[in-house]
Amino acid sequence: MASKVLCSIITIGDELLIGQTLDTNSAWMAQALNKVGIWVHRRVAVGDDELAITTTLDYEMAISNIVLITGGLGPTSDDITKPLLCNYFGGTLVVHQPTLQHITAIFTKLNRPLLTANLAQAELPNNCIILPNAKGTAPGMWFEKNGAIIVSMPGVPYEMKSIMSTSVIEKLLQKFNPTNIVHKTILTAGMGESFIAERLVAFENNLPQHIKLAYLPNYSFVRLRLTATADDALFLDNEITEYHNQLKQLVADIMVIDKDETIEKVVANLLLQHHKTIATAESCTGGYIAHCLTSMAGSSAYYNGSVIAYAYDAKEDLLQVNHNELVLHGAVSQTVVTQMVQGVLQQMKTDYAIATTGIMGPDGATDDKPVGTVWIAVANNKTVVAKRHHFRYDRKKNIELTALNAFEMLRQLIIKDVAI
Amino acid sequence: MASKVLCSIITIGDELLIGQTLDTNSAWMAQALNKVGIWVHRRVAVGDDELAITTTLDYEMAISNIVLITGGLGPTSDDITKPLLCNYFGGTLVVHQPTLQHITAIFTKLNRPLLTANLAQAELPNNCIILPNAKGTAPGMWFEKNGAIIVSMPGVPYEMKSIMSTSVIEKLLQKFNPTNIVHKTILTAGMGESFIAERLVAFENNLPQHIKLAYLPNYSFVRLRLTATADDALFLDNEITEYHNQLKQLVADIMVIDKDETIEKVVANLLLQHHKTIATAESCTGGYIAHCLTSMAGSSAYYNGSVIAYAYDAKEDLLQVNHNELVLHGAVSQTVVTQMVQGVLQQMKTDYAIATTGIMGPDGATDDKPVGTVWIAVANNKTVVAKRHHFRYDRKKNIELTALNAFEMLRQLIIKDVAI
Repeated sequence: MASKVLCSIITIGDELLIGQTLDTNSAWMAQALNKVGIWVHRRVAVGDDELAITTTLDYEMAISNIVLITGGLGPTSDDITKPLLCNYFGGTLVVHQPTLQHITAIFTKLNRPLLTANLAQAELPNNCIILPNAKGTAPGMWFEKNGAIIVSMPGVPYEMKSIMSTSVIEKLLQKFNPTNIVHKTILTAGMGESFIAERLVAFENNLPQHIKLAYLPNYSFVRLRLTATADDALFLDNEITEYHNQLKQLVADIMVIDKDETIEKVVANLLLQHHKTIATAESCTGGYIAHCLTSMAGSSAYYNGSVIAYAYDAKEDLLQVNHNELVLHGAVSQTVVTQMVQGVLQQMKTDYAIATTGIMGPDGATDDKPVGTVWIAVANNKTVVAKRHHFRYDRKKNIELTALNAFEMLRQLIIKDVAI
Repeated sequence: MASKVLCSIITIGDELLIGQTLDTNSAWMAQALNKVGIWVHRRVAVGDDELAITTTLDYEMAISNIVLITGGLGPTSDDITKPLLCNYFGGTLVVHQPTLQHITAIFTKLNRPLLTANLAQAELPNNCIILPNAKGTAPGMWFEKNGAIIVSMPGVPYEMKSIMSTSVIEKLLQKFNPTNIVHKTILTAGMGESFIAERLVAFENNLPQHIKLAYLPNYSFVRLRLTATADDALFLDNEITEYHNQLKQLVADIMVIDKDETIEKVVANLLLQHHKTIATAESCTGGYIAHCLTSMAGSSAYYNGSVIAYAYDAKEDLLQVNHNELVLHGAVSQTVVTQMVQGVLQQMKTDYAIATTGIMGPDGATDDKPVGTVWIAVANNKTVVAKRHHFRYDRKKNIELTALNAFEMLRQLIIKDVAI
């Protein structure tokens, strides 16, 4: 009989509490656990403080089946987690031969001297199962107490992911038989959260108890997520698919994609599917759109290159923007963005192109062009679509929103193209 | 008399627990609070679940002076925080006239119909102080109970930051008189955490109880952070400055900067200070270096533009890379990276340039060039420095490490230049 398996994630480290480090580990772990039906119901961050850690452990162990801990396992003396856990569970630190050999091999390969601090990493509690760390020197530690599983892993994301993927998930599934959790997402563009909600009142009221609808807005890009839990996987899958289909029909006019995918991924897949290529000519986004495109594996199949033209000279020399019109209309204008997108299309010989020019802030505003004024153009060899936007946020967010809107404009152009 | 003021941050939302959204709010809040001496000792994320939220509130209120809550205040029905808090503190929801006027004004300005869901946002608990939200429709709510302060804010980062900056921080300082916390950071490059620690054993042993040293490694870029707490601000400042100076001398050979600054900011400041300009020619980093440079406000003073040359054609056409040598040596070679950096320097007429070419993975490896093989070049009009690196991580991390190392190579070149 399957049951709801609850997990708490504890992240340890003062750097998380003073905001010096962003916690990306928890999100990754939650995704991985969710996929196999383990529900992360709490995430707690505490400092490098013995009392804080043990109090938190007491509390989380009492309310969760699984407690996963990251951080505090490095070789330096600000890392206190290992001896603390060893004590907490009543064990003793002893040299663990396979770990010692592993650490020695790493340093031999790197041709570096082995330091006392690294050797000490092979001293491990004798009351836990050691989970090998193929990517680093600090292994994971698997404790069991009062029916709860407690796993400690290093905080380096690359190492944590390796230990999770090679042993933790599998061992947890051997131990528990989790209830199924299924998520189905729809990405929408162009309509605010409350307007969508107004449209979906009847749909929401009609949802059964075990299916929830959540709104995840990123400005005018809103993801709608259905979450369902049940024992019977097949029944659940059929049921949520039915509601997902209903929802798709209700938001058909604003739907970008019917799964949890980024808009750049949607665009990349369209380009791949139709064997098309793309280039970008970026002023205000300064390479961010190119970065989004090239962050995806296999991007060389559709992405040729970009010209990032910040200065006037660069716009003229590399994108053949007309000097007089640049002076006449200013860089942030329909004329210039149109010339930029046509220039890069020619230069890079691609099927599609995106161009951006705008004022991202905090400086650079003029009387008629406040911060956040942006011209975006998308084009193929027949059509140019240019549109003025006005974003009202900080520099970082304005750059991100320009990219999101550019991808959405391009997606619409491609879809119109391939429909012909 | 100052005292240690403890704060818990609670973030509410299923999207945080399934890993769909990264929690950036907590880090920002922690930084802002830390600056004024308020110590965030716990961060807890819970789902959109009434029992989970109230249990967490009970617990955090008992151990903290301040509890800050974000999330769960949107107009849609998955947001349950407001009625919950109203009940929890024994109040009633009533229409708050100033908020109603504010919401009406926003919708009038946007020329959009006002929905029932938005109007409901003006119904607020009558047992709290309303904190206006200049950037959105959901205001903050300030409750007091048993000497603890509980503040609820929307989860949209832009709105939360606005409410924190305009009212929360100031009101907290009126209420409490926090102990001083001071951090001093040093950024180092090129040496692993354990090697630095080995060097700093005596220094660490010599630190007084109220000063802590932490190691914050990002691969071979390690930040060393001294944290001190004390009542007497002046004494504390003198004392930590003394230890900070000692530390600077001990790591002088690997120090990038003696404060908490990113390496791209260090490079940008050097360029600004010496009135120099930069361009980039990027293959494997695909615009990420340009993006780092242009993310900083005022970047047009030193940044001209970039050529992102993914395809062979783009390298030849835009960067004058020699076709025969490209075929002979391959794109990932010293010859090509050198021609790229020289090409962009000429094309963009800048004082400095960075070029990158490599295999970021997961595909693209050859027998003699495994994933993670990268050539980086930095140059001025007299010198080219090219170096091969080998990163062993995933695509995202390989891109980031290439950028970090490129900035460090450029920093060294600039420093050598300006020293002459």
